[in-house]
Amino acid sequence: MRALVKPEPGPGFVLKDVPEPSIRGDEVLIRVRRAGVCGTDVHIYEWDDWAKGRCKPPFIVGHEFAGEVVRVGSLVTDVREGDRVTAEGHIVDGRCLLCRTGNAHACPYTKVIGVDRDGCFADYIAMPATNVWHLDDTLSYEVGGIHDPVGNAFHTALTADIPGSTVLITGCGPIGLFAVGICRAAGAARIIATDVNDKRLALASRMGAHDAIKPQDAERAVSQWTDGLGVDVVLEMSGVPSAIHQAFRLVRPAGRVQMLGVPAKTMEFDFATELIFRGVTVYGVTGRRMYDTWLTMTRFLRSGLFDPTPVITHRFPLECYDEAIAAIKSGEAGKVIFEISD
Amino acid sequence: MRALVKPEPGPGFVLKDVPEPSIRGDEVLIRVRRAGVCGTDVHIYEWDDWAKGRCKPPFIVGHEFAGEVVRVGSLVTDVREGDRVTAEGHIVDGRCLLCRTGNAHACPYTKVIGVDRDGCFADYIAMPATNVWHLDDTLSYEVGGIHDPVGNAFHTALTADIPGSTVLITGCGPIGLFAVGICRAAGAARIIATDVNDKRLALASRMGAHDAIKPQDAERAVSQWTDGLGVDVVLEMSGVPSAIHQAFRLVRPAGRVQMLGVPAKTMEFDFATELIFRGVTVYGVTGRRMYDTWLTMTRFLRSGLFDPTPVITHRFPLECYDEAIAAIKSGEAGKVIFEISD
Amino acid sequence: MRALVKPEPGPGFVLKDVPEPSIRGDEVLIRVRRAGVCGTDVHIYEWDDWAKGRCKPPFIVGHEFAGEVVRVGSLVTDVREGDRVTAEGHIVDGRCLLCRTGNAHACPYTKVIGVDRDGCFADYIAMPATNVWHLDDTLSYEVGGIHDPVGNAFHTALTADIPGSTVLITGCGPIGLFAVGICRAAGAARIIATDVNDKRLALASRMGAHDAIKPQDAERAVSQWTDGLGVDVVLEMSGVPSAIHQAFRLVRPAGRVQMLGVPAKTMEFDFATELIFRGVTVYGVTGRRMYDTWLTMTRFLRSGLFDPTPVITHRFPLECYDEAIAAIKSGEAGKVIFEISD
Amino acid sequence: MRALVKPEPGPGFVLKDVPEPSIRGDEVLIRVRRAGVCGTDVHIYEWDDWAKGRCKPPFIVGHEFAGEVVRVGSLVTDVREGDRVTAEGHIVDGRCLLCRTGNAHACPYTKVIGVDRDGCFADYIAMPATNVWHLDDTLSYEVGGIHDPVGNAFHTALTADIPGSTVLITGCGPIGLFAVGICRAAGAARIIATDVNDKRLALASRMGAHDAIKPQDAERAVSQWTDGLGVDVVLEMSGVPSAIHQAFRLVRPAGRVQMLGVPAKTMEFDFATELIFRGVTVYGVTGRRMYDTWLTMTRFLRSGLFDPTPVITHRFPLECYDEAIAAIKSGEAGKVIFEISD
Repeated sequence: MRALVKPEPGPGFVLKDVPEPSIRGDEVLIRVRRAGVCGTDVHIYEWDDWAKGRCKPPFIVGHEFAGEVVRVGSLVTDVREGDRVTAEGHIVDGRCLLCRTGNAHACPYTKVIGVDRDGCFADYIAMPATNVWHLDDTLSYEVGGIHDPVGNAFHTALTADIPGSTVLITGCGPIGLFAVGICRAAGAARIIATDVNDKRLALASRMGAHDAIKPQDAERAVSQWTDGLGVDVVLEMSGVPSAIHQAFRLVRPAGRVQMLGVPAKTMEFDFATELIFRGVTVYGVTGRRMYDTWLTMTRFLRSGLFDPTPVITHRFPLECYDEAIAAIKSGEAGKVIFEISD
Repeated sequence: MRALVKPEPGPGFVLKDVPEPSIRGDEVLIRVRRAGVCGTDVHIYEWDDWAKGRCKPPFIVGHEFAGEVVRVGSLVTDVREGDRVTAEGHIVDGRCLLCRTGNAHACPYTKVIGVDRDGCFADYIAMPATNVWHLDDTLSYEVGGIHDPVGNAFHTALTADIPGSTVLITGCGPIGLFAVGICRAAGAARIIATDVNDKRLALASRMGAHDAIKPQDAERAVSQWTDGLGVDVVLEMSGVPSAIHQAFRLVRPAGRVQMLGVPAKTMEFDFATELIFRGVTVYGVTGRRMYDTWLTMTRFLRSGLFDPTPVITHRFPLECYDEAIAAIKSGEAGKVIFEISD
Repeated sequence: MRALVKPEPGPGFVLKDVPEPSIRGDEVLIRVRRAGVCGTDVHIYEWDDWAKGRCKPPFIVGHEFAGEVVRVGSLVTDVREGDRVTAEGHIVDGRCLLCRTGNAHACPYTKVIGVDRDGCFADYIAMPATNVWHLDDTLSYEVGGIHDPVGNAFHTALTADIPGSTVLITGCGPIGLFAVGICRAAGAARIIATDVNDKRLALASRMGAHDAIKPQDAERAVSQWTDGLGVDVVLEMSGVPSAIHQAFRLVRPAGRVQMLGVPAKTMEFDFATELIFRGVTVYGVTGRRMYDTWLTMTRFLRSGLFDPTPVITHRFPLECYDEAIAAIKSGEAGKVIFEISD
Repeated sequence: MRALVKPEPGPGFVLKDVPEPSIRGDEVLIRVRRAGVCGTDVHIYEWDDWAKGRCKPPFIVGHEFAGEVVRVGSLVTDVREGDRVTAEGHIVDGRCLLCRTGNAHACPYTKVIGVDRDGCFADYIAMPATNVWHLDDTLSYEVGGIHDPVGNAFHTALTADIPGSTVLITGCGPIGLFAVGICRAAGAARIIATDVNDKRLALASRMGAHDAIKPQDAERAVSQWTDGLGVDVVLEMSGVPSAIHQAFRLVRPAGRVQMLGVPAKTMEFDFATELIFRGVTVYGVTGRRMYDTWLTMTRFLRSGLFDPTPVITHRFPLECYDEAIAAIKSGEAGKVIFEISD
């Protein structure tokens, strides 16, 4: 089968023929239809410090996908051949304290497909049956292919209290844009979204932001809509130090900052005035809750409350992987996906 | 009356005679019996950068106290002459969004007695009746005089989930020591307390810490009692950068860090690896909840679940204010109090 | 001034001239513009058993209103003459454990205007300044006049987790209808509303119910939209025993039933199979949170997320009080209001 | 092997020889050492209406146990021969909405060992590996054998907020007695426990109840310790209608009632005055959270915070099953256990 492979340490990917994966008794084999391309894939492509420290080539890249089940292990009772599915790409140990107490998304023994083991930028992928999530009948493979990052956005937004709240979203990459739409659907009273890029701000407006503005205009907008007090909730989606400082400056006392954007390195932070004296709560978001987030996401999608498709700006066949990576690196893209098979 | 006064910008206090305060219709006049001396008082005494930026001399210092009501304003119906009381020293506006939604402790319009207006290191203090908290009959004025910092400790500890949890307390100043006793009373499964000072570690043991150890030994102790996973909760009580980094390194994934200790300046922090990837929640603790914390504190104190008195290591008459400040600055004291009248 | 009065024990009201109320230093005088008529007013009108046990005539009736401040007590600093306001009609003691810990809505010493003291069906009403809530500039006196029951609906709906949830609302009186709109705005995935009356079901559809159906059709609808599992949340708004049993039968295991509708008398209930074995949580709703609910309500209203005006079906001048009461008793009305002055 | 069997519809058990169970690849075989006898076993013994409707003889009885793993299925990686274990007796489907969102304890497809399939009153039992909980090294098989009901007590107590709270526990059967000790360890400010039986009240005192009194004395004790307001939390452990009414009468406004005791039939209840007007929250307790409760329980047990052994009043060999059932039916026993093997 075809697979997009990180063959060895160093930049770039290679599209090559590899053997179709075999499955164990508790796994299923999925024919991949659509797959999302993520910033993590860019890190692996560029072979930056994070990738060097984490990944062990060779392996197949990609962790966001949807497809059709084509084979089922002997012990699997709840997934059938022909089922339309997507999957949680974090394969957890299932037995540690975190897994057994509702925090599997933070399991320290997690293996991520496309990072720690073979991924989904390929014609087929083997997945543990417990990681499979049935795609709702009303949803396309394209939407299924981005359940992973949409799930990140749901996890970030809905672990805060959104109905009636004023929300600042700093950073309108794909996950930030999804979060705009989710907050709008969940009854945020005012959504102020910031980004440096005009195309992304246009998408933010389309997804429902009341204000889609440059970072330098955020302070004025927040002041106007909160009587100078600050927003109830910030969703920090950029990882940019100036945005992080702004997040803490513009959240109201006793407010909440949800941090998903990952800063590339350490930064100066004033815990006293930015966090402690203001009584703020900060939540570090990793992955998606298993499977609370998946259920909520399905509910929003099937009911029509939330439609992520306007965020998808680029669709490529698998062989155009260099173009896909370049689109993300441009900083102007919404979501980029591979159309792997039909 | 006697009052300990910050007379003008610059180091030091002066004990002098000042007029007895008058009261408005919604205030009460309290004869001060016991008062706690706090690190904040040291900042004002030393006239450091924080004090320079915040305080406007002249004013009477001191914000922790208990005493007896000696006069009652005409509109006050729920406090009577002779009542034994303590008081919340944060005087809030009562009308802002924070005050009206259960977050008065984070009211941005707060005036703190002894910082922003006249305080309690004096024979008498005028207080709004709404700030008065009746001292339980079973409690001494001495214990009443430290309800404020004990309340900080309750706020820090019990906004986390303590029963059955493993807890690391970094820093055994008075509030850290109170927190040890509170966590013990609330059923923490293991309490590991750290400090650099042996006298404070001895107090931590006395207050119920299972392990009272030097910071350099924390990693080993945490690993031993948590199977290498990290503690459920850290109470950061030191404000020391190395302790803050240790807090985030030793909390388990999806754990909680409660930050009360105030770092003196900005510090380098790696949001990615210290907070986000580990799914941690951080809560910045300011003051005490009005008046949930006061109620819980009274419940613990009157039931005998928690006794803060072993933490009180120094008692001075008001005129020995230089000695009181010196005792705190030594880094070896527990709680220091003034015995103002009997 | 004109006032609608319960003159003595027995059925009916009397419209009569009474002296304008005087105010204390901590009160304000409000010229009433619009006032809502409530089921409680019907109980008092009819002088049923509840009214006989609770009320002590003579007193002015009415507890839902908005108007303009015309006089301000000497101690009031945050309300000014000319302010457009509404008010929380529950006057609490402010000092009890409930009041001091964020549960003032359940204060056992509550006095309700129009029930325990003079109410708002009059040209003027005196109110404690702390009970005044400023009407947002964007909102009409008509909407202000129903903040009380709209607040009940917000309290009932948003103390459950609504975004993405399936919701059954049993009973489409005014508060049930408001709740439909609130749940829609807050991102409920499916709202199934039931009532016996077709006019009310038509209003439920208009407010955003996905299904507005007769009670006998609820089981099928719930089954269809929840794969037979039951809804996440029931808002019980009818007080009818058959609806209460249905609520517990159609909520999913570990789901939540919010009870606002008040049954007229005791009923048979099977705690074992209806509640305990299914792991259900039940919340008894009384009043509105002070003032979290008021803030959230204002946010929804000013942002345009929620518009209660379609629910208002009848508007009367004060002298048509018999017609107003009759409209409510018909069981076909939405919200009924008095237009008291312009 | 020996097994205590319900051979056919009708009263009584039979001890007989049956084949040792075989295990599937994802199961383990456990040699049973100690097993707890439960009220449920009495229902099955007596063959009451509940048992008639639920159970399908023949099957082996018993659902609380601890023992040693003697065989491990080929797919099991985290349990080994020789491991000392206990187990969650609720075998859930693992795929339904409840199971996938942290509410497996309420899975509607649950099969309970000893009720819906073969149980643990036997020399060996086969269990799915995912249901196995490793017994902490510091704990005896006897304590392991009652993890199930002790878990019920933890689930009931710690889903309320216990530290600093006043708690009324109505009913001092084994689970009520465990709950007394748990609340004491978790820092309840006052624990008032009621029962009609003096022996059980003596055990309640021994487990840490501040007041262990007859039901008719509860009102006075609650009033005394709560200034007439009512307790913060009631744990209803009796299932007796008069105790249920008392629970709602003695909980404070906005308080919480945790219901574990199962009334035998429907009862009259006044939702208006007992629940709604008082703003009370009710939680129906079924089973134990998987596996949050198990983790918390282990933490309390291994730290020595809580010792359930004083509650164990009777120990029998398996052949004395009639005596064991009789001991429970007497209403004077604490926990009754079988010593099945050594």
